[in-house]
Amino acid sequence: MKSSANSASSPNKEPSNGGKEPAIEIEARVRYSETDQMGVAHNKSYFEWFEIGRTEYCRQKKFPYKDIEQSGFFLVVAEAFCRYKKPLRYDDIILIRVVLEEITPKKAVFSYEILTKEDRTPAASGYTVHVVINAKGEVCALPAEILEKIRA
Amino acid sequence: MKSSANSASSPNKEPSNGGKEPAIEIEARVRYSETDQMGVAHNKSYFEWFEIGRTEYCRQKKFPYKDIEQSGFFLVVAEAFCRYKKPLRYDDIILIRVVLEEITPKKAVFSYEILTKEDRTPAASGYTVHVVINAKGEVCALPAEILEKIRA
Amino acid sequence: MKSSANSASSPNKEPSNGGKEPAIEIEARVRYSETDQMGVAHNKSYFEWFEIGRTEYCRQKKFPYKDIEQSGFFLVVAEAFCRYKKPLRYDDIILIRVVLEEITPKKAVFSYEILTKEDRTPAASGYTVHVVINAKGEVCALPAEILEKIRA
Amino acid sequence: MKSSANSASSPNKEPSNGGKEPAIEIEARVRYSETDQMGVAHNKSYFEWFEIGRTEYCRQKKFPYKDIEQSGFFLVVAEAFCRYKKPLRYDDIILIRVVLEEITPKKAVFSYEILTKEDRTPAASGYTVHVVINAKGEVCALPAEILEKIRA
Repeated sequence: MKSSANSASSPNKEPSNGGKEPAIEIEARVRYSETDQMGVAHNKSYFEWFEIGRTEYCRQKKFPYKDIEQSGFFLVVAEAFCRYKKPLRYDDIILIRVVLEEITPKKAVFSYEILTKEDRTPAASGYTVHVVINAKGEVCALPAEILEKIRA
Repeated sequence: MKSSANSASSPNKEPSNGGKEPAIEIEARVRYSETDQMGVAHNKSYFEWFEIGRTEYCRQKKFPYKDIEQSGFFLVVAEAFCRYKKPLRYDDIILIRVVLEEITPKKAVFSYEILTKEDRTPAASGYTVHVVINAKGEVCALPAEILEKIRA
Repeated sequence: MKSSANSASSPNKEPSNGGKEPAIEIEARVRYSETDQMGVAHNKSYFEWFEIGRTEYCRQKKFPYKDIEQSGFFLVVAEAFCRYKKPLRYDDIILIRVVLEEITPKKAVFSYEILTKEDRTPAASGYTVHVVINAKGEVCALPAEILEKIRA
Repeated sequence: MKSSANSASSPNKEPSNGGKEPAIEIEARVRYSETDQMGVAHNKSYFEWFEIGRTEYCRQKKFPYKDIEQSGFFLVVAEAFCRYKKPLRYDDIILIRVVLEEITPKKAVFSYEILTKEDRTPAASGYTVHVVINAKGEVCALPAEILEKIRA
């Protein structure tokens, strides 16, 4: 897996969220183990791809999600949605495109698009809503320094 | 896995969908492999549980999903949504509650609730929207005899 | 999921390990999400079934694996092997048969057989080797009271 | 299973298996969804990584596994083994190193090493044995032209 650096002229640099946040993209390949007997990627796999996208988003913002957890904060998934548009097959190369739609001290919303790398055909789109909890499992607020990094 | 037959007096027999369709329930246990490093069931696992619920729903309607596919029809997932309410842990026994909200020749909508078995605490709820395709991957209509069985 | 109690006359009560330990069995159904595009259960799924079997083994020994971890001990997998004999398909009911082959304060070996429920055809067999670690990740010894329960 | 340090001039091309076949390597990152409540990658994930390695092996041999299946041949897994040496954590970058140990018209054996990218620490090793079947599920022989490509 490789994160594709967004060049300044790249179309995927254009913010799709009203100028709030630029999208980031990361490439992945459909695994054999992600297919099911219909011969296409199983519906649950997309939620794993969304997660790979979130991870990459935080890394590119210089605040790896791993470090957020090590600081004692967890972005638990409160809602997850996916709309499946075009089946994906074993060995297809996909682009996971991620936008941070909303971030407050207690909540984050990410949106996603899954595109085929070959011709950028939309294969799926979705979102996840996250709430912030601490190590005891209590809802809490992200400290300002983490928030600023993610918003940067 | 065991499908719990709904007895007539059982509270879980009460339709939660305005009398359209009764709910069915099936029991499962959270697997170790379904947990993640947060110590709770991973968000993708719920979509596998929804699928187990759909499978059981079709079986109880005397039309196992396996037989639908063998007849040449596939209910592909077009949308999937889950709202996570309470974390679930390794070895928890859950009830997967399924309602067929809508069925037309070309579309089906299932809704789900995940409850703890111990005290029927709601742990999650969600839905999936399905479209009917044939073996060539073309959108098509379910034959009347399959529709009638599922609606029965 | 339901553990099938072994009745005294049942053939699966006969110890397959020289009288050391009786086998336990638990039933499961092949999930749609466990199949791959070959139309059969994916090779990784068997290792999840082995784990379900271990979990049930410890439960029947009155020492749920969950409680072992809560006591601060972890049986990490050091080796895992599976021989695949007969493909399994979506919705097949399987029996996971588990024998504790060896248990010392620092090591445990479980062996497994996956059988079809319908006619007890062997579908796979395998084993896992475990070492005991504490919460710091250090190799350690299981306390006598846990060992005795598991051996009982 | 042998591994050789990669020399600066030909990183992953040096044969590590007595001249039979050179090893190939592919990079991956441990997904959050691949961890379990012990905080490390779950034992089943390694078998998915082995599969990613096999896929890449065939691609580098100019015979993508996808094309083998489209030719009507399937390399089903007959045996799978993994020895776990060092736990892997979320977001770790790993190298999957693959050697084709044996290939005959009816059988293939791949061996694998999982290394940390950071310092090439061995994290796991294993192998898979495959038999060749046709679309009807019958054991058969790979045609010479496929064999030659894979052996090349």
